[in-house]
Amino acid sequence: MRASRFLFATLRETPNDAEVISHQLMLRAGMIRKLASGLYTWLPMGVRVLNKVEAIVREEMNRAGSLEVLMPVTQPASLWEESGRYVQYGPELLRFKDRHMNDFVLGPTHEEVITDLARTELKSYKQLPANFYQVQTKFRDEIRPRFGVMRSREFIMKDAYSFHVNQESLQETYDIMYDAYCKIFTRLGLNFRPVQADTGSIGGSGSHEFHVLASSGEDDIAFSTESDYAANIEMAEAVLVGKRATPTQALTIVDTPNQKTIADVSAFLKSDPAQSVKALLVQGVVTEEGKTPVVALFLRGDHELNEIKAEKHPLIASPLTFATEEQITELGLTAGFIGPQGLTEKGLTVIIDRAASVLSDFVAGANEADKHATGVNWERDANFTEVYDLRNVVEGDPSPDGKGTLQIKRGIEVGHIFQLGQKYSEALGCKVLGEDGKPLVVTMGCYGIGVTRVVASAIEQNYDEKGIIWPSAIAPFEIAIVPMNAHKSPRTLEAAEALYEELQAAGYDVLLDDRNERPGVKFSDLELTGIPHRIVIGEKGLDAGTFEYKGRRDAESVNLSKEELLAKIVK
Amino acid sequence: MRASRFLFATLRETPNDAEVISHQLMLRAGMIRKLASGLYTWLPMGVRVLNKVEAIVREEMNRAGSLEVLMPVTQPASLWEESGRYVQYGPELLRFKDRHMNDFVLGPTHEEVITDLARTELKSYKQLPANFYQVQTKFRDEIRPRFGVMRSREFIMKDAYSFHVNQESLQETYDIMYDAYCKIFTRLGLNFRPVQADTGSIGGSGSHEFHVLASSGEDDIAFSTESDYAANIEMAEAVLVGKRATPTQALTIVDTPNQKTIADVSAFLKSDPAQSVKALLVQGVVTEEGKTPVVALFLRGDHELNEIKAEKHPLIASPLTFATEEQITELGLTAGFIGPQGLTEKGLTVIIDRAASVLSDFVAGANEADKHATGVNWERDANFTEVYDLRNVVEGDPSPDGKGTLQIKRGIEVGHIFQLGQKYSEALGCKVLGEDGKPLVVTMGCYGIGVTRVVASAIEQNYDEKGIIWPSAIAPFEIAIVPMNAHKSPRTLEAAEALYEELQAAGYDVLLDDRNERPGVKFSDLELTGIPHRIVIGEKGLDAGTFEYKGRRDAESVNLSKEELLAKIVK
Repeated sequence: MRASRFLFATLRETPNDAEVISHQLMLRAGMIRKLASGLYTWLPMGVRVLNKVEAIVREEMNRAGSLEVLMPVTQPASLWEESGRYVQYGPELLRFKDRHMNDFVLGPTHEEVITDLARTELKSYKQLPANFYQVQTKFRDEIRPRFGVMRSREFIMKDAYSFHVNQESLQETYDIMYDAYCKIFTRLGLNFRPVQADTGSIGGSGSHEFHVLASSGEDDIAFSTESDYAANIEMAEAVLVGKRATPTQALTIVDTPNQKTIADVSAFLKSDPAQSVKALLVQGVVTEEGKTPVVALFLRGDHELNEIKAEKHPLIASPLTFATEEQITELGLTAGFIGPQGLTEKGLTVIIDRAASVLSDFVAGANEADKHATGVNWERDANFTEVYDLRNVVEGDPSPDGKGTLQIKRGIEVGHIFQLGQKYSEALGCKVLGEDGKPLVVTMGCYGIGVTRVVASAIEQNYDEKGIIWPSAIAPFEIAIVPMNAHKSPRTLEAAEALYEELQAAGYDVLLDDRNERPGVKFSDLELTGIPHRIVIGEKGLDAGTFEYKGRRDAESVNLSKEELLAKIVK
Repeated sequence: MRASRFLFATLRETPNDAEVISHQLMLRAGMIRKLASGLYTWLPMGVRVLNKVEAIVREEMNRAGSLEVLMPVTQPASLWEESGRYVQYGPELLRFKDRHMNDFVLGPTHEEVITDLARTELKSYKQLPANFYQVQTKFRDEIRPRFGVMRSREFIMKDAYSFHVNQESLQETYDIMYDAYCKIFTRLGLNFRPVQADTGSIGGSGSHEFHVLASSGEDDIAFSTESDYAANIEMAEAVLVGKRATPTQALTIVDTPNQKTIADVSAFLKSDPAQSVKALLVQGVVTEEGKTPVVALFLRGDHELNEIKAEKHPLIASPLTFATEEQITELGLTAGFIGPQGLTEKGLTVIIDRAASVLSDFVAGANEADKHATGVNWERDANFTEVYDLRNVVEGDPSPDGKGTLQIKRGIEVGHIFQLGQKYSEALGCKVLGEDGKPLVVTMGCYGIGVTRVVASAIEQNYDEKGIIWPSAIAPFEIAIVPMNAHKSPRTLEAAEALYEELQAAGYDVLLDDRNERPGVKFSDLELTGIPHRIVIGEKGLDAGTFEYKGRRDAESVNLSKEELLAKIVK
């Protein structure tokens, strides 16, 4: 590509409304432009990257035996009613009526459509396992779209769906997809980790997320220092450590006027927050009599509640909802001063976190306004219903697999594979004839990659103060050739053209920067747009038979002979 | 691809609701499935074709210097209000509100979005000409979607838009796009014709349609027998032939009770319809006083009105609207018995077609119920305001370029290139700084290819009673290999596998039909799905060192040596 015929829409200034670095750099490098909130046009510089990501995804999906299909963006609402998600999905599902007043949605995902297809096309166990994917435009009406294409309303997904006679077959395809995803993200040149994940609203039994590690990530990932263990913090188990010591202190009520938070109380009493418990009163599951009981959760003062874990407890309502002030008052309690003493006696379910369960002589609310208790001890002073894993892991916690301790890093979710089980096949009646001649509800898996998001996450992981640093596999151009003073020196332009033709013929994606711009402007643009290899052709070099080469991560350029140059850029 | 791992969703029966052959065969060959009215899922067999079409379109667009972009499917209504099309476009434009109650549309085309992009990104004449394209999902809320993907609601378009400092530059890019389109449709293996076309509702000054010739086409195309002239019948000029003869008959009023149509009157009077004129009363353009005058059009009895030509007349309202019964009565006329005599004297504008203008001694209505006039002659008996080209050409008409006569064939429009002029750039204020330092409204072109429609039209042009006959370039597989009795004869399967590997390595798209099906079933499927080359491997051939080869258009198979076989399938 000749730069003079390309759209170099680079910006010198960082746009005001771009909060994260990938959004800033995608705007500045002329990759995207905002059309409306959460809607972006991809400019030529961006499309080149997007197409390379898509090509790698397609190659590996094909290689893994998944068959490409293409489903509509617009979907009839009736299918979503069948699955129960028309109501359940909430306002992110964009609903509209066509000219005949029939209800449709803009598809945020395609479980319903593919299951509808499968229930007519798949007739026998002999056709299974089957695995279909598409690379397609999706729409999710985010309440607050942000971070550019990282959380846009319209985006491109690779979504795949597999169909099986049983869990064992699903597990086989799931493992194949897991491997395919590892190959895809490796080929994309990303530093990523597959992590155990919660299955969220899609439901199902097993799930892994694929995270690109980047400090700007929205998710916390817990890793073992000594094994392959990795899990989203939503899922990472906090194992029980240590044993409860024998009480040494008597329970004492102390005045703590207006001291409601753990920080305040600890400072006031000069105690360690880790030596206290905090209470969280939440809604329990509605009883047969239609009552909503309150469940009391206790965690160590320095720990954080993990809502996803709590929601999984059979006695706790999901989504997790805190008790109302009214409910607390009815129980004769005051927020900020609640302790576990006497709560089971009031009929409450009291669930305590594993780490809180091994405390002794701890501080807790006194169940009386402006008072706390010190020297509290479980069983002696406070009964509980159950010990449960309720908290987020923290750095230094032991790894749940028994090997090493946990570190926590931030990640950007770019892929997600799920074992859906029979959630959709059951709801939509997707059955095949089994080997025994009887109808059999199929078992399903689904596998997503956020294609547009991959582009942004690659930048979040690869940039410096000058701009993007593309992994070669997805760079818009692999090599840039800059003839010095091209408009005055036909000799440098000729040499540049010759090298351009030669490298293109060798299969490289080359940009010849033949623009009538100062070298400084060209160099800034090439650094901002992240082109991995830069070759400058000047009079001196031509005399000496050398090329001035600079890799995008190099501090300085070097003069290389033709052979040395070719060795540098070899794929 | 191994057929055992592919989705062969072939159907033996022709589905009831498929009217055209491409729709029937796409369903039967397992290429598409209907999700809802006008919405189709592309199955693996279809996606393979679609991807090949897209790849050829992209290659030629890139080669022609167009830069790929990707615009959102969802577009803010505000841009359509700026261009005036939010109201003008009608109910095919699907309008909806997002969760914040902002108005959006599902894009049927992207003139507004690209012009909005251009007005911010293009700043100087130095950046022009610029040409951007995308391959993208579009939505048009057809009132009656039909013919499968030929007229679906959701479809894939390649749409391109170019920007220029003047008409001369537009013409240059337009010519480049014209050539690129010829290359694309040639590479796709289609029998097509570029034809002069009307610019329709998009507006602008020059336009060509690219039609795939097929008897099922919805458009009539007029071709010269002796030159390159080709035009949509909407546009094809009917040139004036001959001169009016001197009157020989006196005007005579005859009774024609209840004879209102040309056919009836001609039969009743035993006269030639070509020797009569028919009247069409239509609405004129509203006058300054707010009145809608009636305009009388007269055509030869055997000719058809061309509404598009009529609408272009400055005195005729567009869209063409016939006069109401009330208006006709007010003029003292009776439908079915209207002639040109005395109409200009009543103040009517009378426009007569060129062919009608050279008639003499003709039959016309007598402007009295149940009566016609014979021996009518222009000027002597009837005045007129103007002679104009009002009719559709018919076979045998002289070609407007003076070379040969016209033939008429049916075509399917698969591409359309337009010279938009300044319609959108003016409305949206898309200006650049000109060479003289002054702002300049850019001149635009736009260029579309209906990618999904290309697939259907290729079938309309290439099929027989057994199924599809794909042009090699877009066949889902180029070659099918069928091992005979593979499940009993490991020898044929081994030989088939070896040939499969060899041909794949040579770059062919090969299907190994390793399904556990009878040969008859496999042969039917391979013919139905239109795979160009079939190679059968059996015991006898292995003994003789030959392969049984059959091209999709061949009546019989032949036994070929390896060299002969490779020569047959060479690309």
